[in-house]
Amino acid sequence: MAVVPEPNTEPAHERSDAARNRALLLDAARSLVAKNGAGAVTMDDVAAAARVGKGTLFRRFGSRAGLMMVLLDEDERASQQAFLFGPPPLGPDAPPMDRLLAFGRERLRFVHAHHELLSAANRDPRTRYGPPVAVLRTHVRVLLASAQTSGDLDAQTDALLALLDADYVEHQLNDGGQTLETLGDAWESLARKLAGR
Amino acid sequence: MAVVPEPNTEPAHERSDAARNRALLLDAARSLVAKNGAGAVTMDDVAAAARVGKGTLFRRFGSRAGLMMVLLDEDERASQQAFLFGPPPLGPDAPPMDRLLAFGRERLRFVHAHHELLSAANRDPRTRYGPPVAVLRTHVRVLLASAQTSGDLDAQTDALLALLDADYVEHQLNDGGQTLETLGDAWESLARKLAGR
Repeated sequence: MAVVPEPNTEPAHERSDAARNRALLLDAARSLVAKNGAGAVTMDDVAAAARVGKGTLFRRFGSRAGLMMVLLDEDERASQQAFLFGPPPLGPDAPPMDRLLAFGRERLRFVHAHHELLSAANRDPRTRYGPPVAVLRTHVRVLLASAQTSGDLDAQTDALLALLDADYVEHQLNDGGQTLETLGDAWESLARKLAGR
Repeated sequence: MAVVPEPNTEPAHERSDAARNRALLLDAARSLVAKNGAGAVTMDDVAAAARVGKGTLFRRFGSRAGLMMVLLDEDERASQQAFLFGPPPLGPDAPPMDRLLAFGRERLRFVHAHHELLSAANRDPRTRYGPPVAVLRTHVRVLLASAQTSGDLDAQTDALLALLDADYVEHQLNDGGQTLETLGDAWESLARKLAGR
């Protein structure tokens, strides 16, 4: 397994090895998280599942927390891609209200699937209000504006996003007798009441 | 300073000593938190300011965290007293919409004044969604219902309360260019849009 040198001096076969290892490690980590939950996944598990040395795993991601954040970041990007550029009803070919409602239900599924990582990120205010959340805020605010929504759009955006917070969603699922379906209905009720005049 | 024995066997003068010490310690702690911020207050400071032995302070509150939670709990109770039973516009002699708007601005002041303790409590899901928050939810939900509000009242309640979350409020004050006044205006805008049909 090649140790990755400075990017500019790296021969082509080492770069492709590195890219392949990175993809193998992320795929392995993603499968293990899906199967066992993020809290139960160790660096040994990931290295073994990817058949890549543990040294390579640490060199690439720095730490277990680093690996988990890269995983979350990649999934956030794929999700953003879907609601910013993907097919309707999430993407731009649907009317704003349809997109908003589809976004709420999609995000509920996303935060539930990633709740352990998002919950950890929530504990740090820099990530809690960091770049991924800024993209969500902009998206919801733009859709509210496109739907000719009256009143304070920032407050309405933050209120809508609060119901999609990972800790809130898990609390509602575990202790509030809710399901992703009923939470989606509740979100739709709020969004319909806010959007428009 | 008397060590407090079992309540039932405790002579009257020891009970009154204990009550007096408790009040002295809480007053001292409250003044120090107001002056220096909760993060800067040590158990030594509190004992010295109250002129009570440090052993008594620890016997009474268990730990620094225990003292801080008692402090927050006492202030929460005083605040609940005001919005449940106090004079208008917070209390029951005002119309529901006036009470709701007064509650929002009052709670913003409260969470800002207590943000360090509330932020610490937020990190534990048991206190984040515990009894004090349940009282707030019931209050807001009852006011929305009294104002003949349509739609999912639980979702609207949680959305309104999310904008009064201590971490959210501090983030908006420190990084969002907001003041308690503008946050109060934003909350009022959301509340007016939701309340009623």
